Amino acid sequence: MPRYKLTIEYDGSVFAGWQRQDNAPSVQATLEAAAEALDGASAQVIGAGRTDAGVHAMGQVAHLDLTKTIRAGKVRDALNAHLRPHPIAVLEAEDASPEFHARFDATGRSYVYRIVNRRADLALDRGRAWRVSVDLDVALMHAEAQVLVGRHDFTTFRDSNCQADTPVKTLKSISVARVGDVIEIRTSARSFLHRQVRSMVGSLIEVGRGREAAGWMADILVAADRTKCGPVAPADGLYLESVSYAPLDQ
Amino acid sequence: MPRYKLTIEYDGSVFAGWQRQDNAPSVQATLEAAAEALDGASAQVIGAGRTDAGVHAMGQVAHLDLTKTIRAGKVRDALNAHLRPHPIAVLEAEDASPEFHARFDATGRSYVYRIVNRRADLALDRGRAWRVSVDLDVALMHAEAQVLVGRHDFTTFRDSNCQADTPVKTLKSISVARVGDVIEIRTSARSFLHRQVRSMVGSLIEVGRGREAAGWMADILVAADRTKCGPVAPADGLYLESVSYAPLDQ
Repeated sequence: MPRYKLTIEYDGSVFAGWQRQDNAPSVQATLEAAAEALDGASAQVIGAGRTDAGVHAMGQVAHLDLTKTIRAGKVRDALNAHLRPHPIAVLEAEDASPEFHARFDATGRSYVYRIVNRRADLALDRGRAWRVSVDLDVALMHAEAQVLVGRHDFTTFRDSNCQADTPVKTLKSISVARVGDVIEIRTSARSFLHRQVRSMVGSLIEVGRGREAAGWMADILVAADRTKCGPVAPADGLYLESVSYAPLDQ
Repeated sequence: MPRYKLTIEYDGSVFAGWQRQDNAPSVQATLEAAAEALDGASAQVIGAGRTDAGVHAMGQVAHLDLTKTIRAGKVRDALNAHLRPHPIAVLEAEDASPEFHARFDATGRSYVYRIVNRRADLALDRGRAWRVSVDLDVALMHAEAQVLVGRHDFTTFRDSNCQADTPVKTLKSISVARVGDVIEIRTSARSFLHRQVRSMVGSLIEVGRGREAAGWMADILVAADRTKCGPVAPADGLYLESVSYAPLDQ
C-alpha cells in the first residue's frame, strides 16, 4: 500500500478545525473525500498538527495511503482537482516509506501569528490576522517572550481541554517583529499544548499594550496557573507554517 | 463645507468596482452610505482611481465633503463603524482644503499585481492573486517590461471601452520581482488607461512562459494595435497600492 507525504495549505476560516468530526466541515474529512474520489477506496489522512477551528496552514504535513500506486505529482494534481472548490491546496506530494508517520515522526512544528496593529478594521486581511487597535511595544514583547524559551511547565498557557500527558514542553524559539503595521510572532517547538501559541500571544499583548509590566511573562509562567494567562488570541491570526522531520524519517 | 482626504483599503472581490452603478454593489456607494449615516445629509465620495470589478486597494484616496465639522480622527472611526460588515476600511482621514480634488490633483498612481507561480490552486490567496502554473522567467519579464517606461501610445494595452481622450501616457516605472513563489509586478504613472496594467501583465506572462521571445513587448507596443495584446490578466491579482499628490495640493 503506497504511502505519500503531503504538504498542505488551507484557509481555516471555513472549517471547524483539522480533525474529522460529526456535523461540521473539517480539513481532514475534506482531504479524505478527495483521496477517496481519486483512489476509489476509503482513505485516511493523518496530519502532523490538529489545528483548531479558524486556524490556517501554509505548510501542514500529512500522510496518506492509497491502494493504487500513482506517481506523486499526479497524486498532488488529482487531489487538487477533487478538492475544488474547497480552500485547501496540496502544495506537494512525495513518495514516503510505509513507516513514515506525519504526526509521530515530526521533530518540529513552526507557527506564525499575524497581528495588524492599527485603528481601522481589516478589509483585505479579514479572517487572516488579528487587528489590535492600541499601539504595541514590539521590542518589549520580544524581550518578554524569551523567558518562554526552553523546557518549562506550560500549564499557564494550556487550554483546559488539552489531552497531552504532561504540561512540560520545550520551546525552541519565539520572536516578535514588526514591519509597518504588521507584527509577526514566530515560534517553534517539537510540539505544543492545546492553544499554547494563542495563549502565549494573548499574554504578550497584555505586556505590549502596557497593561502588564516587564517581568510579568516570567511571573505567570512560573505560577503554572491557567487563571494567570492573558485573554487567548483569536484563531484568525494563527498559521501552521511548517513541520520538520529528521532526514531519515522520510 | 469641510472636505476630508480619505485613504482607503478594500477587498474588491465582492464589489462590481469602485464606481457607483445601478443594481450592483460598488465601493463608492458603500462609502457614501456610511458618510450619509455619519453626517445625516447626502454625501459624495470622489476617488482617485476608478478600479474595476474585483480589483483591490491598499491605498485608494478619495475626498469627501460633510455638512458638519467633525474631527478627522472621528470621521475615520465613525466611517469604519458604519462600513461594517463591508470589507472596506478607512485607514486615514485628514482635513483637506476645499480645493483638494482626489482625482484631478493626483500626480501619481501606483499599482501592484500579485502572481503566485505554482502548480497548486490557491487556498489562502484565493481572489487575492493570480495563480500561474507554468514556470515564469522573471528576469526576462523585468527586462522586457522596461520598453514600456516613458511616453508612448499605449493603444495595444488599452481596453476598447476606455474613455480617455488619448492613448498616449507616460509610464514612470515597472518592475517584476520574485520572492519564493510570489511574483510582484509594480508599476507607477500619473494615470493609466482602462485595463492598462492588466493588459501589460497579461502580455508579460506570454514572454515569461516562453510563448513569445525577447523583443516581443517592444514589437506589440510599437504596433499600437489592441489585437496584439496578450490575454488580459484577471482582476484578482491587482491592487491600487498608493496615490500621490504634490505637497501643495493637500
